[in-house]
Amino acid sequence: MAHRLRIPHRFCKLQKRVPEPFIATATLGRQQHQFRLSTTAIPQRQEATTPIKQKTEFGSLPLSWPHKGWDDKVVQEVVPSHRKPRTRSDRIAWRVIRICRWGMDILTGMPPEPKAGSKKRSVTASKPMNEAQWLVRFVFLETVAGIPGAVAGGLRHLHSIRRFKLDQGWIKTLLEESYNERMHLLTFYCMYNPGRLMRFMVFATQGIFYNTMFIGYLLSPSFCHRFVGYLEDEAVATYTKCLGEMDKGHLPQWTDPNFKIPDIAVKYWNMPQHRRTMRDLILYIRADEASHRGVNHTMGNLDQASDPNPFIEENSGVSHMHLAATKPAGLERDEVLEKYTR
Amino acid sequence: MAHRLRIPHRFCKLQKRVPEPFIATATLGRQQHQFRLSTTAIPQRQEATTPIKQKTEFGSLPLSWPHKGWDDKVVQEVVPSHRKPRTRSDRIAWRVIRICRWGMDILTGMPPEPKAGSKKRSVTASKPMNEAQWLVRFVFLETVAGIPGAVAGGLRHLHSIRRFKLDQGWIKTLLEESYNERMHLLTFYCMYNPGRLMRFMVFATQGIFYNTMFIGYLLSPSFCHRFVGYLEDEAVATYTKCLGEMDKGHLPQWTDPNFKIPDIAVKYWNMPQHRRTMRDLILYIRADEASHRGVNHTMGNLDQASDPNPFIEENSGVSHMHLAATKPAGLERDEVLEKYTR
Repeated sequence: MAHRLRIPHRFCKLQKRVPEPFIATATLGRQQHQFRLSTTAIPQRQEATTPIKQKTEFGSLPLSWPHKGWDDKVVQEVVPSHRKPRTRSDRIAWRVIRICRWGMDILTGMPPEPKAGSKKRSVTASKPMNEAQWLVRFVFLETVAGIPGAVAGGLRHLHSIRRFKLDQGWIKTLLEESYNERMHLLTFYCMYNPGRLMRFMVFATQGIFYNTMFIGYLLSPSFCHRFVGYLEDEAVATYTKCLGEMDKGHLPQWTDPNFKIPDIAVKYWNMPQHRRTMRDLILYIRADEASHRGVNHTMGNLDQASDPNPFIEENSGVSHMHLAATKPAGLERDEVLEKYTR
Repeated sequence: MAHRLRIPHRFCKLQKRVPEPFIATATLGRQQHQFRLSTTAIPQRQEATTPIKQKTEFGSLPLSWPHKGWDDKVVQEVVPSHRKPRTRSDRIAWRVIRICRWGMDILTGMPPEPKAGSKKRSVTASKPMNEAQWLVRFVFLETVAGIPGAVAGGLRHLHSIRRFKLDQGWIKTLLEESYNERMHLLTFYCMYNPGRLMRFMVFATQGIFYNTMFIGYLLSPSFCHRFVGYLEDEAVATYTKCLGEMDKGHLPQWTDPNFKIPDIAVKYWNMPQHRRTMRDLILYIRADEASHRGVNHTMGNLDQASDPNPFIEENSGVSHMHLAATKPAGLERDEVLEKYTR
C-alpha cells in the first residue's frame, strides 16, 4: 500500500518555485513509499540574484583551484571497481558504506538490483529513474562527498601546527578534493531546485556526517580514508549506471542535443567545444570521483604521520588526478615510499 | 621575590635535548616570575628524522601554495597600525586582543611598555629580550595565527555545500592565510626546540582557541574577521619591535653575518641571494602579517553572505597580498563593491 509523506503547510509555498514537484517512489520490503523531494530538472536554472552575485558567482570571480581538465582516454577508461577489504577495519568501512547506499537508494527511488526468484523486485527494477531523480541523488551524494576532504585537510593542518611537523603534502590534495566535490554540487544545482525537505535533509546530514568524520578522523585517519575510498567506489558505480541509462535513452531531457550544460561546468573543467553534452559532464565528474577513489585508497594504505602524499604536484589545480584515476585500489605503500627513497 | 616553576621528573629528560634551558622572566605587578620554556636558539636545527622524512619535509616535496615573494618597497613600508574600533563589537574584539597580548607579554617575558611615574617598570623595560625569548613569542603567536583561516575556510566551505551557494572567493584566501602562518611557524621551528611545557601550552591553546573560533565564526563571522584583524595588528607591532631590537644590536646571534636562515624559508619565499638575513626574514613575515591584517579588516567590513572577496587572484600562490599589505585598516565595503559593479 502506498502512502504520501505529509508535508507541513510552510513547505507548500515551495510549489510556486517548483512547477512539477517530484514524488520519489521507493520499495521497502512489500510496501511502496513515496517522498516529495520537490525537485524538477530544468535545462538552465533561472535564479533571482543581485547583479553583484550574478557577476561574481558565475562571471568575473576567478576559480579558486581551476581544474586541469581531463584526457578523453582517461575519462572513457574509468570503470567501477571494488577494492577487496583486507583488514577488519576495511570490512567495517565497506559495510557502513553499503548501509548508507541502501538508505540512499530508498530515498532517491533507485530501483534495487534485480534478485533471482523475486518477480516483484525485478518488475520494480525495470522502472528507470528520471532526470529529476538522478539529480536528487547526485546533489545529495555531492553534499556528503564535499565534507571528508575539508575535515581531513583541516585536522591535518591543526596537527601540523600543534606538533610542529610538515604534513607531507596531504593537505592541499584533501582540500582540493573537497573543492572539486563542491564544484560538482554547484554544477548540479544549476539544473535543480532543492525543496525545503531536501534542504533540511542536506542540513541534517551535514550536521551528523561532519561531526562523525571529525571524531572519526581524530580516532583513525586511515579508516576514514578507506571509508571515503569506498564511498567513491559507489560514486563511480552510480555515475556509470547513469551513463548506461543515458545510452539506453531513458534520460531524453539530457540526451537532447539542445540541452545546455551549466556555464560553471564549462568554465571549471575548461570543457572543449565538442565536449559539452550532459554525457561529457557526467564522464568528467565520474573521472573526478575515480581520482578521489585512488587518492583515498592510497592514503588509507599509508602511515598517516610520516608518509608523503604521492599525488602532490606543484602549481596544479588538481594534484595528479590522472594518476589517481587509473589506480582504482590506490597505490600500495611500497610503491609510494619507493618513489621518495629512490 | 622570584621563584622557579616546578617541573615534573619526566620533563627533565628534556634537558638532554636542550643544552641551555631558557628561563623566561616576567614581572607581574611587583613580583618577578620565572618560567622554564626549555628553548634555545640554534642557527640551524639538527633533527633526527628518517631519510624519507628528511627528504620530503624540506626537500623533494613541492610547496602546496608557493609564496609570490615580496617587493622590497612594500616590505620596507609596512608600519604598525591600529584600526580605530567603530562599533561595539569592534571594541570587544580589540579588548579581547589586548588581554591576550598582556598574557603573552607575561608568558614570553616581554618588558612592559615604560609608564610615567613608575621607576621599577622602566628599569624592567630597559632589559631587552634575547633570541630565545623572541622565538618563544613568535612560535606561540604563529601556532595561534594558523587557526582562524582554517576554521573560517572550513566553515565557509560547509556553508557553501549546505546552502548551495558559491562562497564569493573567500575560502581560498582564508586557507592560504592559514598555510602562510603555518610556514612561518615551521620556519621558526627550524631555529627552536620547544620544550614539553611549551608543547603542552600550544596543545592546550589550540584546543581552546580552535573551539572558540569555531563557535564564534558560526555566531558572527564578521566579529571573528575583525578579531583576527586586530590580532594581526599586534603581530605587525611585535615583528616591528623585534626589527628595532636587531637594529639596536640587542640580538647579536641574528645579526651575525654567518647566521643562516632555514632552507624552508628561502624555498617558500623564494628569497633572492642578497635577501637571506634574519632581518630580511622578519621583514617578509611582517609583510605577510600586514597582508592578513588588511584582508581580515576588509572581510570584517563586508556582508559575509553575498560580498565578493577582493583579494582573490587566479593561480596566485597568495592572493593579492601586496594590495592587502598596503591597506592596514582594510578596504571599505563601498570600495570592494565598486570594483565588482563597475
